[in-house]
Amino acid sequence: MTTEDLTKRLKAWRRDFHKYPELGFLEMRTASLVARELSSLGFSLQLGEEVMEKSAVMGRPTEREIEEQVRWAKDHGADVEFLPYFQEGYTGIVATLETGREGPTVAFRVDMDALPIHETEKPGHVPNQEGFRSIVPGKMHACGHDAHTAIGLGLATLLKEQVNELSGTIKLIFQPAEEGTRGAKAMAEAGVVDDVDYFIASHIGMDVPLGHFVASNNGFLATTKMDVTFKGRSSHAGGAPEEGKDALLAAATATLNIHAIPRHSAGASRVNVGELHAGSGRNIIPDKAEMIIEMRGETSEINEYVKEQVESVLRGAATMYNNEVEIEIVGEALNSRCSKELAEIIHNVAGKHPFIEETVLENSGSSGSEDATYFMEAVKKRGGLATYVIFGTDLAAGHHHEEFDINEEVLLPAVEVLYGVAKKLGEK
Amino acid sequence: MTTEDLTKRLKAWRRDFHKYPELGFLEMRTASLVARELSSLGFSLQLGEEVMEKSAVMGRPTEREIEEQVRWAKDHGADVEFLPYFQEGYTGIVATLETGREGPTVAFRVDMDALPIHETEKPGHVPNQEGFRSIVPGKMHACGHDAHTAIGLGLATLLKEQVNELSGTIKLIFQPAEEGTRGAKAMAEAGVVDDVDYFIASHIGMDVPLGHFVASNNGFLATTKMDVTFKGRSSHAGGAPEEGKDALLAAATATLNIHAIPRHSAGASRVNVGELHAGSGRNIIPDKAEMIIEMRGETSEINEYVKEQVESVLRGAATMYNNEVEIEIVGEALNSRCSKELAEIIHNVAGKHPFIEETVLENSGSSGSEDATYFMEAVKKRGGLATYVIFGTDLAAGHHHEEFDINEEVLLPAVEVLYGVAKKLGEK
Amino acid sequence: MTTEDLTKRLKAWRRDFHKYPELGFLEMRTASLVARELSSLGFSLQLGEEVMEKSAVMGRPTEREIEEQVRWAKDHGADVEFLPYFQEGYTGIVATLETGREGPTVAFRVDMDALPIHETEKPGHVPNQEGFRSIVPGKMHACGHDAHTAIGLGLATLLKEQVNELSGTIKLIFQPAEEGTRGAKAMAEAGVVDDVDYFIASHIGMDVPLGHFVASNNGFLATTKMDVTFKGRSSHAGGAPEEGKDALLAAATATLNIHAIPRHSAGASRVNVGELHAGSGRNIIPDKAEMIIEMRGETSEINEYVKEQVESVLRGAATMYNNEVEIEIVGEALNSRCSKELAEIIHNVAGKHPFIEETVLENSGSSGSEDATYFMEAVKKRGGLATYVIFGTDLAAGHHHEEFDINEEVLLPAVEVLYGVAKKLGEK
Amino acid sequence: MTTEDLTKRLKAWRRDFHKYPELGFLEMRTASLVARELSSLGFSLQLGEEVMEKSAVMGRPTEREIEEQVRWAKDHGADVEFLPYFQEGYTGIVATLETGREGPTVAFRVDMDALPIHETEKPGHVPNQEGFRSIVPGKMHACGHDAHTAIGLGLATLLKEQVNELSGTIKLIFQPAEEGTRGAKAMAEAGVVDDVDYFIASHIGMDVPLGHFVASNNGFLATTKMDVTFKGRSSHAGGAPEEGKDALLAAATATLNIHAIPRHSAGASRVNVGELHAGSGRNIIPDKAEMIIEMRGETSEINEYVKEQVESVLRGAATMYNNEVEIEIVGEALNSRCSKELAEIIHNVAGKHPFIEETVLENSGSSGSEDATYFMEAVKKRGGLATYVIFGTDLAAGHHHEEFDINEEVLLPAVEVLYGVAKKLGEK
Repeated sequence: MTTEDLTKRLKAWRRDFHKYPELGFLEMRTASLVARELSSLGFSLQLGEEVMEKSAVMGRPTEREIEEQVRWAKDHGADVEFLPYFQEGYTGIVATLETGREGPTVAFRVDMDALPIHETEKPGHVPNQEGFRSIVPGKMHACGHDAHTAIGLGLATLLKEQVNELSGTIKLIFQPAEEGTRGAKAMAEAGVVDDVDYFIASHIGMDVPLGHFVASNNGFLATTKMDVTFKGRSSHAGGAPEEGKDALLAAATATLNIHAIPRHSAGASRVNVGELHAGSGRNIIPDKAEMIIEMRGETSEINEYVKEQVESVLRGAATMYNNEVEIEIVGEALNSRCSKELAEIIHNVAGKHPFIEETVLENSGSSGSEDATYFMEAVKKRGGLATYVIFGTDLAAGHHHEEFDINEEVLLPAVEVLYGVAKKLGEK
Repeated sequence: MTTEDLTKRLKAWRRDFHKYPELGFLEMRTASLVARELSSLGFSLQLGEEVMEKSAVMGRPTEREIEEQVRWAKDHGADVEFLPYFQEGYTGIVATLETGREGPTVAFRVDMDALPIHETEKPGHVPNQEGFRSIVPGKMHACGHDAHTAIGLGLATLLKEQVNELSGTIKLIFQPAEEGTRGAKAMAEAGVVDDVDYFIASHIGMDVPLGHFVASNNGFLATTKMDVTFKGRSSHAGGAPEEGKDALLAAATATLNIHAIPRHSAGASRVNVGELHAGSGRNIIPDKAEMIIEMRGETSEINEYVKEQVESVLRGAATMYNNEVEIEIVGEALNSRCSKELAEIIHNVAGKHPFIEETVLENSGSSGSEDATYFMEAVKKRGGLATYVIFGTDLAAGHHHEEFDINEEVLLPAVEVLYGVAKKLGEK
Repeated sequence: MTTEDLTKRLKAWRRDFHKYPELGFLEMRTASLVARELSSLGFSLQLGEEVMEKSAVMGRPTEREIEEQVRWAKDHGADVEFLPYFQEGYTGIVATLETGREGPTVAFRVDMDALPIHETEKPGHVPNQEGFRSIVPGKMHACGHDAHTAIGLGLATLLKEQVNELSGTIKLIFQPAEEGTRGAKAMAEAGVVDDVDYFIASHIGMDVPLGHFVASNNGFLATTKMDVTFKGRSSHAGGAPEEGKDALLAAATATLNIHAIPRHSAGASRVNVGELHAGSGRNIIPDKAEMIIEMRGETSEINEYVKEQVESVLRGAATMYNNEVEIEIVGEALNSRCSKELAEIIHNVAGKHPFIEETVLENSGSSGSEDATYFMEAVKKRGGLATYVIFGTDLAAGHHHEEFDINEEVLLPAVEVLYGVAKKLGEK
Repeated sequence: MTTEDLTKRLKAWRRDFHKYPELGFLEMRTASLVARELSSLGFSLQLGEEVMEKSAVMGRPTEREIEEQVRWAKDHGADVEFLPYFQEGYTGIVATLETGREGPTVAFRVDMDALPIHETEKPGHVPNQEGFRSIVPGKMHACGHDAHTAIGLGLATLLKEQVNELSGTIKLIFQPAEEGTRGAKAMAEAGVVDDVDYFIASHIGMDVPLGHFVASNNGFLATTKMDVTFKGRSSHAGGAPEEGKDALLAAATATLNIHAIPRHSAGASRVNVGELHAGSGRNIIPDKAEMIIEMRGETSEINEYVKEQVESVLRGAATMYNNEVEIEIVGEALNSRCSKELAEIIHNVAGKHPFIEETVLENSGSSGSEDATYFMEAVKKRGGLATYVIFGTDLAAGHHHEEFDINEEVLLPAVEVLYGVAKKLGEK
């Protein structure tokens, strides 16, 4: 395939995925088409439940949402052969290419999910001008995962075409539900990186301009996202207040005390009760209160400390008001430091690509979270190397903004650099 | 009109109002038909804004709700001549009958509003069997105000027919929005009882069986219903928590401290934060929190004490988190003791009615609230007498229950006793 | 003994006890002298640990306080024969008189303890004028228990002198530590009223004027007095805040939530965190917090409800901050209704005494607490009758006031009425 | 004076100050002896109120403490000529040496106060062995300020002896009350460094071993120490709870919400309610609550942010419970970065001293606070340079420990290095 053709295909893929955004664990159309493409190329595939540990799935959609998404995917061009593998909401894919030559196992992580954001209707927005605006109200690829998926397919294409130049084994990991840091853990726990020597996650944008490249992005905060429900007992607030078990009082006191958790001397921590909804009437003792909480830590240990304190507070608040409390972890990510040795190799590869004007060995400015860290920690734990790279691109608006858009010129160089990395690492 | 005819009309009126329930301040169809009927009978009428002090209206519906109700009323048989008087949401009526003979001014209070309850769809429910079920999903006459309105019209009919037997002046006060104790204050402050010597409010049911009568019902709790909004400032909980002004923390601490308001040594008090809704995302400092609060007191003074403490707590919580707090009183009622002298007169009148098997001079079991107390206190303040009577009737289910229904046999005796009271008091 | 002599002795006893006040469970001098007197009169005695269930003692003084009191008592005229019975701090006495004639068992309760109040030094204060001011700084008989003890001894004298006119068995129960409602429970649980048919507790004053008498005083509130200690772990607030377990945060959140316990619909309740002391330095996470709490209820059930809620809150607060919490009940009293049948008998007896101008059958105005209720409930439970009577007397200042003083004219009539009651009940 | 003689005098001074420790603003004996010495040497002196802005004094002792200290100082060898300058509790000294040659103004800061710590009675403790243990129970030089004062006097001696080798002006600033970060602000606001070009504060120990030297110690946290009193109104918790204004509830809710102040994204912050004492009896609504609070920030801005939030919370809590709140700042320090240019000069000077084995240009490990930062910021603001140096010495136990003791070998090199710095800077 000519470079020009590949560029066209990358753009077409990206725009197709952009037009049909799917939320985490619901990437059924996307995954079925990805699987179709990888299958055509000749990768050997592991799909859905085979590559996801069910018990480690966090923030799973409701059964109703899953059923509706199956129908929607069918109606919007999903591949009917592969859709069944994903229709229970386990939408991960691992595609493996054996080069037949001895060498290490190199894995690339690609994420596929969109966000619950309504894409801007402003006429100047490129997807509106060029006709690939999200057709789904309230859902949008506003973080670039559409481009990631396209890059993943482009990389697969190149790897297959030039397989004769490669050694070892190459794995492409298409992960669901990166948003909310929900999907990676289930794939890591299913063991998909247990044989991996080199692991590379990549992201576009992230305040890095077009033509720039970061070989190792440190600074991701560990995080836990928690949904909490207090269940008490209602009673008439005027007639029999003593018969109630006030779930709102439990939640209010929990909210205060969660924010009062001491700072940690080892580094930054965060905790936020983002939402609280309780009660069902003015003169009824509230029997239910729902809270949405997020905590973060500069290290996984700090995040774990905050999480333990939050759980103590929640249990204590329940005890105070004779409530039951249900705590669900709906997202979690670790902190992970990139392997410097791997970053240096990639730094060199990228530095030689004509499109890359500037490469940075290490960046630590981020204060967000990423669940690719689960893969990174798993690989490093067994002695492998892992890093998280960034391909800069110019953005129309920041990530998670309704006017987010990328400069598509990043697509081809990203594919080529990643291919170069696979080739280089095969020589190790 | 024969007794039989009157009975038929009472039932027809009650069933019509039952079928077309309207919430507080939105009783546009009801009020227009009531006004039409009273006008036909020859009462002199004061309507809408003429009998309601706008600044004292509590818990007024939104403009949109008001506009929609006007349309609905037009489509469902409202009287087009009288509807304009009520279409701004001021749905009170005062109908006056001058007998031409010297005597005191006697006033009767009638309430007209329905509840936001979805009427049961069970086939056995009488309104379902007999075809007068509420046609409006989610709205229902579940407290008997449909019957009250019918009784009011029946009383008007009888008063007019037998005006020659009466002395003094008789006023019928049709009040909106008794539910939530929102409507009486505006009519009392408009002065509609400022010339009244004897005031009688009446209610059916209330755990009093058919054939029984209560001449004075004491024990209503003073109450204030409050809607509160904390307005802070949102910020990213991870990136810039210090820039936020957390409305949820303000509301949570307010909730705890409101419940911690000391008991009052002079009698029972209640306070309840019935609902709290705050926040707009897991990792966003909440910029808004809404609370729904109710307080009660065995006396108006106790209720006022609790209210003042609640306001102090709310202002303090706003100060703590640099929030603004908006406090809206959406309902309020006083405690009021019935005039024993008036109760005794009515007790005698009722005792002579053949349908009344048992009359009770005073009842104090209630722990609810009623805003008829505004009229009562106003009348008593200027030296008049006031009471609150109950006509017992058998109920299919308790007040405010979706299966609530009355035994319509109560309608005629209620009209006749009230007529008898008007006649008797005219002689004073 | 002539009436005049008895009057003199009553006054002498009362003034002696007044001069040497002893706090609860430390009434060693008092009890030893009471025992000496009763022994001389020929009552059979049960003393100290024999009549007190140790495990039910609440608010016991420290060992050091007990040791110091033994020394003080020895130095201030305690009876050396009887002191050993009381020197462990179990200072109750039961004195029994068998008349030898068949009849019921009648018991009278007498309390002996003083208060931690510094008696006024104003010259006009009668004890100052007449030389029987408390010799112990900070301790004072400011509630009349000095008079009660004198009346008890006077009653014993009269009973013994006129034993031939009596029937059945008479028990005099001298109770320690009524203040703080700490002492009665231990005697009741030791079974001292398990054979009692009629039980009479008495008090002087209580806003009842001299010459008036109340045959049954209802309205005592049930109460629990609780001392609470949170134990956490200190750490440097700057250097390692995460290593602390903040006892002050636990106590602060407990304080708020204890006050937020819902009102009870069945009657009045109270709860107060009277004191909180926590922490040991500005930059140290507090490892200890001490709270002093009191709760009350219009009925024992309401008090029990509040107590259970308080305990839940305390346990929850400990859970929140990984603290341990120690809860000690240091005082407790029940609510108890007087037996009307017994009150009527006593009402008649008292009505005939020439000094009593007015007798009231029932009084319910009190809002204090009394642990005589333990005896009352125990007697009633096994079918006996019990009441609480008041002998009015004029007070120089209210109970528990530093200028409290009684009119001693009440002493003799109180003795005579109680004697009359014993005689009358013996006839039953 | 020979080096040997100077060494002896340094040791004698240090041991004398150690034996007679005085708390902050009460260094009356110390200051009078320092003034005497400096006066003898010929420095021109400014004393007491002349060099302290009264309104900026924080955490001033009570009048009684001041009066008692005057007596104590008189009894323990204070200089009677100079004592009057300090007897109001303003114990600062500025001693100025004009070399007569043109040159910059160089200032050295010396702190003089001791700690409220009881010196160990262990026989092995050197001050016990050598007879210079603190004679004041509960007070001790456990931070090395005794040595600092001795070094200051040694430096004065050397400067005077070798004044011919110096240029410019040299100021020695003897500061009271460094502990609690209370004294520097008042001297800085009195303008004592307003003419200073180079400012050097020094400290011994601080985990730096003997023979080592740090030319600039960064990392001091900004801090505010606050004493807070809530004043409400007491009432009987059983009889009239509604009449109380509960100061404990105000303080408890303030405590919780102070700990709930959001983290700051720009760096570490701390806040601690170290002590809370409230209430005066079990059944009394608490009318007073006292809190001791400390906050810190990685920068002065962060500390200021926390302080503003704390004040909002306190005001809000007072509003909630109709309390008054008194907020007293009893200590405060800034964060300040050392001037690199000055540090480098000093680094060179120290490096040449034979006793100094190792010099560190910059150290940032500290997490304590220092109010020398007030002087540093004032000097830097007007264009001068400032730094904070450390002379390492071996410690028997950590700072603020009851067994704290230094290796006195540090004294002479410290004097000589500081002298060398004065000389070197004079050449600028």
